[in-house]
Amino acid sequence: MKNDIQIAQEAKMEHIVKIAKKLNLSEDDIEQYGKYKCKISLDVLEKNAHKKDGKLVLVTAINPTPAGEGKSTVTVGLGQALCKMGRNAVIALREPSLGPVFGIKGGAAGGGYAQVVPMEDINLHFTGDMHAITSANNLLSAAIDNHIHQGNVLRIDSRRITFKRVMDMNDRALRNIVVGMGGKINGFLREDGFMITVASEIMAILCLANGLEDLKERMGRIVIGYDLDGSPVYAKQLEIQGAMALLMKDAIKPNLVQTLENTPAIIHGGPFANIAHGCNSIIATKMALKLSDIVVTEAGFGADLGAEKFLNIKCRYGELTPNCVVIVATMRALKHHGGVKKDNLNIPNVEALKIGIVNLEKQIENIKKFNVPVVVAINKFLTDSVDEIEFIKEFCGKLGVRVALSDVWAKGGEGGLELGDIVTDILDNEESNFTTLYSEKEKIENKILTIAKEIYGAKGVVYTPAAKKQIAELEKFNLDKLPVCMAKTQYSLSDNPALLGKPQGFDITVKEIRVSNGAGFIVALTGDVMIMPGLPKVPAANKMDILDGGKIVGLF
Amino acid sequence: MKNDIQIAQEAKMEHIVKIAKKLNLSEDDIEQYGKYKCKISLDVLEKNAHKKDGKLVLVTAINPTPAGEGKSTVTVGLGQALCKMGRNAVIALREPSLGPVFGIKGGAAGGGYAQVVPMEDINLHFTGDMHAITSANNLLSAAIDNHIHQGNVLRIDSRRITFKRVMDMNDRALRNIVVGMGGKINGFLREDGFMITVASEIMAILCLANGLEDLKERMGRIVIGYDLDGSPVYAKQLEIQGAMALLMKDAIKPNLVQTLENTPAIIHGGPFANIAHGCNSIIATKMALKLSDIVVTEAGFGADLGAEKFLNIKCRYGELTPNCVVIVATMRALKHHGGVKKDNLNIPNVEALKIGIVNLEKQIENIKKFNVPVVVAINKFLTDSVDEIEFIKEFCGKLGVRVALSDVWAKGGEGGLELGDIVTDILDNEESNFTTLYSEKEKIENKILTIAKEIYGAKGVVYTPAAKKQIAELEKFNLDKLPVCMAKTQYSLSDNPALLGKPQGFDITVKEIRVSNGAGFIVALTGDVMIMPGLPKVPAANKMDILDGGKIVGLF
Repeated sequence: MKNDIQIAQEAKMEHIVKIAKKLNLSEDDIEQYGKYKCKISLDVLEKNAHKKDGKLVLVTAINPTPAGEGKSTVTVGLGQALCKMGRNAVIALREPSLGPVFGIKGGAAGGGYAQVVPMEDINLHFTGDMHAITSANNLLSAAIDNHIHQGNVLRIDSRRITFKRVMDMNDRALRNIVVGMGGKINGFLREDGFMITVASEIMAILCLANGLEDLKERMGRIVIGYDLDGSPVYAKQLEIQGAMALLMKDAIKPNLVQTLENTPAIIHGGPFANIAHGCNSIIATKMALKLSDIVVTEAGFGADLGAEKFLNIKCRYGELTPNCVVIVATMRALKHHGGVKKDNLNIPNVEALKIGIVNLEKQIENIKKFNVPVVVAINKFLTDSVDEIEFIKEFCGKLGVRVALSDVWAKGGEGGLELGDIVTDILDNEESNFTTLYSEKEKIENKILTIAKEIYGAKGVVYTPAAKKQIAELEKFNLDKLPVCMAKTQYSLSDNPALLGKPQGFDITVKEIRVSNGAGFIVALTGDVMIMPGLPKVPAANKMDILDGGKIVGLF
Repeated sequence: MKNDIQIAQEAKMEHIVKIAKKLNLSEDDIEQYGKYKCKISLDVLEKNAHKKDGKLVLVTAINPTPAGEGKSTVTVGLGQALCKMGRNAVIALREPSLGPVFGIKGGAAGGGYAQVVPMEDINLHFTGDMHAITSANNLLSAAIDNHIHQGNVLRIDSRRITFKRVMDMNDRALRNIVVGMGGKINGFLREDGFMITVASEIMAILCLANGLEDLKERMGRIVIGYDLDGSPVYAKQLEIQGAMALLMKDAIKPNLVQTLENTPAIIHGGPFANIAHGCNSIIATKMALKLSDIVVTEAGFGADLGAEKFLNIKCRYGELTPNCVVIVATMRALKHHGGVKKDNLNIPNVEALKIGIVNLEKQIENIKKFNVPVVVAINKFLTDSVDEIEFIKEFCGKLGVRVALSDVWAKGGEGGLELGDIVTDILDNEESNFTTLYSEKEKIENKILTIAKEIYGAKGVVYTPAAKKQIAELEKFNLDKLPVCMAKTQYSLSDNPALLGKPQGFDITVKEIRVSNGAGFIVALTGDVMIMPGLPKVPAANKMDILDGGKIVGLF
């Protein structure tokens, strides 16, 4: 069987100018990056302002399991299927980070016959957006330490600098560091740390900004830390937001590529789904809505994290109305939620399915709370039994939700026609009465309680003393009127990764509260969040190579 | 008077496809990065292998002074002038680093009416080469710390890791750091430091490699440090050179842009001129020689450092034959070498010129030792007097060297016709009998002594005990048969920046010896070398901005 990179390298790509034409974009609307990638000018948004938006489809999933659900693959495959059906559809995805590529994961841009290409470029530097974010982030960091070194007029408390440096790399040695060693000419000593670039607040800002001016203002609003009196210090006080925005002048433009079936795919932005909101950029999504009839996009992790943030944070700032939500599951993953061990996941087991399906049930219930139509996509495996499939269809049927089998990994768009039929039927005939779940004007505790009770099914929320103090501080400085971004384990509806299915009677414990004031959300941490991964014993990088003539191996 | 960015923004740029056509490059030979930048495929080298090389002109200078010499400006202006004269010429320059742009310098890509454009892009992320180098460098660093964390089979001595992390930023706080804090899951504690990206050995490798395979082999040869027995540890022992080369798959391709007068300019690579060799890439230079009749290139700092390394290191590895060397000087700079204070440099002063001209005289003598024809270019200022100009012409005449006045800053190519006439006369009628100054097979001390005596005019060379020990170590491990890269102050022919003109009777003190085994040279440090600059009190970044609509200000 061919692996992803082999399939990708056999793709018959069309020149990007031709892909752009499918979206009615002229050569003047784009900036080519080689023959198969381009950036789309922001002018396109303005030029098409009068046009009606297309419909927005969000692909999300049950709580992820080691079995794998294939959310990105379904997203790409659904886009391919819709185009096959003669619909004018475009896919809007997140950009992958370089760190995981060299760590465990290898490349990632869908899978099988539902991939975006050129996968080598998308997985490596792509059009440089990650690097621009890294530069803008680290310019601010350099400006902070330089300000302190040059006299510290703002009286920044070097013990309370919350803004960290970033690198697009898996590098555990940089998690906790001491900077400024070496005496007077090298600055003041302090503790610091690097995060991976996708965890940068700059990335979240890029994805929530509505344009260049908004981006710059958000950069200026970043709280970089506190002064010796305990008041927040903002990036704009360092007069650096102009240069930061300048570094982002190209990164702010959405990138256009294609799928294996030459469906246009806009790939732009990719914030972490724990300490950030985990969706592609608002600018890219809005542009896609102007350029096509149907936009298929995805959010990170399961629906309790990714979709909740997509709906409560991204749609709020972007004033977006999702028209349909697809929840992806696999038999294997549902059986995992039903308590089946990894080695037995391929054995048909309707009883385990009956136990595990509560996870899917809860995610369906959650999406319905936002008043958006839902459909379930079962990402097919050869081992799925007729009885299992029947059971799921019947179960969802009772909830008034349709189920489609998706076979896009093996068959591309052809394998997504069943899902495409249901989705288009919903888009053509059902109304979305989308509403967010809470007002950002509420008190922080109320916002968190709403998410915990309504989405996670928790009994209540417990705060550590530190978290309580942090909430009081944010209220004092009027930094509390923002939506909440939950940093919780993705593996469970609760904050305990071991509780599968649909946990009951649990409390959510909030250990820490931070503000990403530039991005525009309050982060509630319920556990340790990994913001700088490490490399495994044998990194994926060790198998990668580029041969004489340019053939790439090991990137899959 | 207009500043550089204003002039650049008024440029009438031609589409990059049209510029490529001037070099007989088809659309298939290039990869566009927007409308005004492209990368040139490496296949072009092979396709043109049968073609005769064009002539190679190196632009260098006297020892730099605070008065400024304008070497890059003359390089660009000469290229423009040659095209105006109907010659098929191309310019080959180094890529600027992002760090200094935000520090003191602002943007830099020539000056006045002799600039390369689009200057904003060239000065910011350009086509991402710097970021690719940063990534490849830091992947190796992450692999080193990961190897130690995962059991340290190679027994790497964490006290003797010589390969540092890099960032393309002026950030003094990162000069000396401690990494790996936080206990077991975060790796082993050790001292480390960041250099600016242009100081990375990866940058030097990019610029000295003859192709992708050579690049990868050089990556593998990097000495990352020593093991607990004191033996060198190579990057290839970490099996990471394939992934590093993969990260460089686009960075290895030369970039094409244009001058204000639409002359093709190839800009590729930009290593430090102290701990590295300070020239653009061999691949770019070779490609330029295949694509045009005359290639005008430059080297860092003055002729004693930049030209010496260009000739002894770059030409050695690239098997290049320079046909003409242009030495740039200004009246102001020569008077500075003659002892005139900064405030009085604009006052005509032939007596001071007579004293200071010995610096130019020595640089001319040095180039002649390589058996390459020389011409002097006086970069004109309004305050230059007729007597001063007469004196210089007469002085150089006695040495058998012609002098041209260059006014390219104010007049573009038109102001470089006099220089162009002399250069083309040399190229058409004089022979270059180029030879390097020493054999790389010599002992390290002999190679250094040759450079010190022949080029600097030193009495001898003194070694610290540390340097002696390091030489013995390199000899022991057979790492000594490489050309030498001197890291010396650029302001003096000696290793004392205060000694202007042509110092006499001095010794050069070598404090430290390092090996850049991947790049292929031994670095001899004669003083402290700044490998990570800091930001000034008011960084240039504070004045930079991008306005709504995209207009860029403050980048000059």
